[in-house]
Amino acid sequence: MAFDPARLRYNADGLIPAIAQEAETGEVLMLAWMNAEAVARTLAEGRVVYWSRSRQAFWRKGDTSGHVQELVEMRFDCDEDALLLLVRQTGAACHTGRRTCFYRAVRDGEEVETEAL
Amino acid sequence: MAFDPARLRYNADGLIPAIAQEAETGEVLMLAWMNAEAVARTLAEGRVVYWSRSRQAFWRKGDTSGHVQELVEMRFDCDEDALLLLVRQTGAACHTGRRTCFYRAVRDGEEVETEAL
Repeated sequence: MAFDPARLRYNADGLIPAIAQEAETGEVLMLAWMNAEAVARTLAEGRVVYWSRSRQAFWRKGDTSGHVQELVEMRFDCDEDALLLLVRQTGAACHTGRRTCFYRAVRDGEEVETEAL
Repeated sequence: MAFDPARLRYNADGLIPAIAQEAETGEVLMLAWMNAEAVARTLAEGRVVYWSRSRQAFWRKGDTSGHVQELVEMRFDCDEDALLLLVRQTGAACHTGRRTCFYRAVRDGEEVETEAL
């Protein structure tokens, strides 16, 4: 069956959460948001395009930072309201310069950093 | 620094998205939602507790299905508005009986199943 971005379920703002995972290592890099056009553009270009909620604009990952996300495969979940993007990440996914945005953990009730700068 | 669930950023409904990832294999299993109390209960119990948006109730994963998620580690992202849960999943994470909820992919514009029932 041909895939149509309109078959996904978007929230009241027209957005769906997208998890980016490094295809080679399985590391979860970030969670960001897409609208239907961002989904279509990501599939067409083979480069990940999000929707920036803060800037209210398309955000083609890497255009300013050089930290491109090349799409390896797009998956979607049973409820059709979440995406999993298998990617090849150039450089850091996180704007802090870390490889992953998920660099803080809770251990024994304390916050700890799992990836130093 | 001691971790307080109130330091996270929740959406207008008081919820934050939580990605569950199998700690051993790195497989992304599902995305669901938590409120601050679900975060606190998950940390206190060492078992993952979500907030069910459809049922508007706490949802301690596995209570009815037996498909428990044991928490290995909770992480949070740079913007403090997304969680990554490293878990040990008993049985299937997905209500369809599949190991992961992300069992459909888009390949060459077509929907394909990546995990059969």
